[in-house]
Amino acid sequence: MVGLDPHLESIPKFIFESILSSDKDEIVEIALREFNKIIIESVADLIPTIKIQIAFYEQYGIPGLKAFKETIRVAKEHGLLVVVDGKRNDIGFTSEAYANAFLGKTNILGSMESIFDADALTVTPYLGSDGLIPFVNVCKKYGKGIFILVKTSNPSSGEFQDQILKETDKEVYQAMAKVVNELGKDLIGEKGYSSVGAVVGATYPEQASVLRNLMPNAIILVPGYGAQGGTAKDTLPCFNEDTMGAIIHSSRGIIFTNDLDMSKEEYSKFVRGNIEKMILDINSALSN
Amino acid sequence: MVGLDPHLESIPKFIFESILSSDKDEIVEIALREFNKIIIESVADLIPTIKIQIAFYEQYGIPGLKAFKETIRVAKEHGLLVVVDGKRNDIGFTSEAYANAFLGKTNILGSMESIFDADALTVTPYLGSDGLIPFVNVCKKYGKGIFILVKTSNPSSGEFQDQILKETDKEVYQAMAKVVNELGKDLIGEKGYSSVGAVVGATYPEQASVLRNLMPNAIILVPGYGAQGGTAKDTLPCFNEDTMGAIIHSSRGIIFTNDLDMSKEEYSKFVRGNIEKMILDINSALSN
Repeated sequence: MVGLDPHLESIPKFIFESILSSDKDEIVEIALREFNKIIIESVADLIPTIKIQIAFYEQYGIPGLKAFKETIRVAKEHGLLVVVDGKRNDIGFTSEAYANAFLGKTNILGSMESIFDADALTVTPYLGSDGLIPFVNVCKKYGKGIFILVKTSNPSSGEFQDQILKETDKEVYQAMAKVVNELGKDLIGEKGYSSVGAVVGATYPEQASVLRNLMPNAIILVPGYGAQGGTAKDTLPCFNEDTMGAIIHSSRGIIFTNDLDMSKEEYSKFVRGNIEKMILDINSALSN
Repeated sequence: MVGLDPHLESIPKFIFESILSSDKDEIVEIALREFNKIIIESVADLIPTIKIQIAFYEQYGIPGLKAFKETIRVAKEHGLLVVVDGKRNDIGFTSEAYANAFLGKTNILGSMESIFDADALTVTPYLGSDGLIPFVNVCKKYGKGIFILVKTSNPSSGEFQDQILKETDKEVYQAMAKVVNELGKDLIGEKGYSSVGAVVGATYPEQASVLRNLMPNAIILVPGYGAQGGTAKDTLPCFNEDTMGAIIHSSRGIIFTNDLDMSKEEYSKFVRGNIEKMILDINSALSN
């Protein structure tokens, strides 16, 4: 899974050179959209899924969000599944609005319409089950998925997630794993995997090993490979014995180049090469 | 604080009647924007702050988000402070993008520009301090604020937030209160209140009483009054002895009417009347 997390400063120059508009909002929208489109076209036959971190589009306001919407459309047109990384969460009534926005449909003046129409969304569990159930209901209704944060990849993730709960004598992340299992049990498909998945960082392989066993039916979204320090070997505990059940994410290590003077063809080759290396790296670790 | 959390189905008919466009996106954008504008104009002299729940705009896609942006501008023009309720959270690098989007500035083709330019944002603490510090840094740089979720107002908030941590023998929400104190200690203003506040629901007055003492310098954003079941008396534990330090939120109980045939003048009076009742209700409880 490649993460489409652009910064304008990291987009190769050829993209800007091809934009004819002089309107700043339009330049931002087109640059983000075209940058993503080239990446999608370069890797669509190699990977099943992209992840779009919405923060990197919100930081560019409306033009950014227009590019976000268009990127989802283009990725799906290329046969890719789209995970929106939004870490959304709220009380039930409001979670329903988020679920409709990203996965379901909204009543627009009398007709039910898809809005951003992604395939899956990351969600945060701090508010408990009544904030999560509306997302699960939308998954069931529209054939979509969620990934609940369980053990995140960042350095300070342990501050709360590794705390031991008195009631169970287990870490918070283990309590969250139980929530993932419970919410996902009615949404398990043919191959044994549920529409309710979990986020577990490659940077914590020991915890991942425990969590893999606790959530046998969850697809684990694994951030932290590459730029954040996780190796292919570190991702292994996230896979089941069937070598499935984990989807490894990388963004900065795939899409950012130090040479912004690359041509379109060079950049496309660069991205494709990075993905090929990542696939080889993970597959080698898996077959060892 | 009134919450501008619109649903198209709950907007009085006179708003739609005044829209000349036949473009659906444009109707949605204008209806949301004009609905909010009437509320703002009706209450701006009575209250200091509005809260905008971004989920209710994301559910309408780009037209919704354009109305969201315009609502912030109009509210500020009327002298109101604007809290965006987004419950954003991520790893450091990404939290920085969220902080820039809502509170700070983004580098747009060489110039630093405000994007949504709110005054404060709600954030979720599940990822620990490295996901929160970028927000605090932006608060410091641009004179903005955050409210960290500590004890939320929803029925299942206790599932995780009320768990006792083995290390401290205290609830999770108490651990979060310490984080709020720690992150806010360098950002305390003249009146003794910090730019780092907390969310504590009116639906849990006992916990609020503990939390008020644990976070003496935090402004507490108090959801749960009104439609969610919290009474004025229930909000009292969130105030300090100076009768300050709490800001009470209501949305559905203020802005939604059962009579969608109201005229503009009737609706404006209705909203103003609801706010006046709420202010009287809270002030009476405070002076008792």
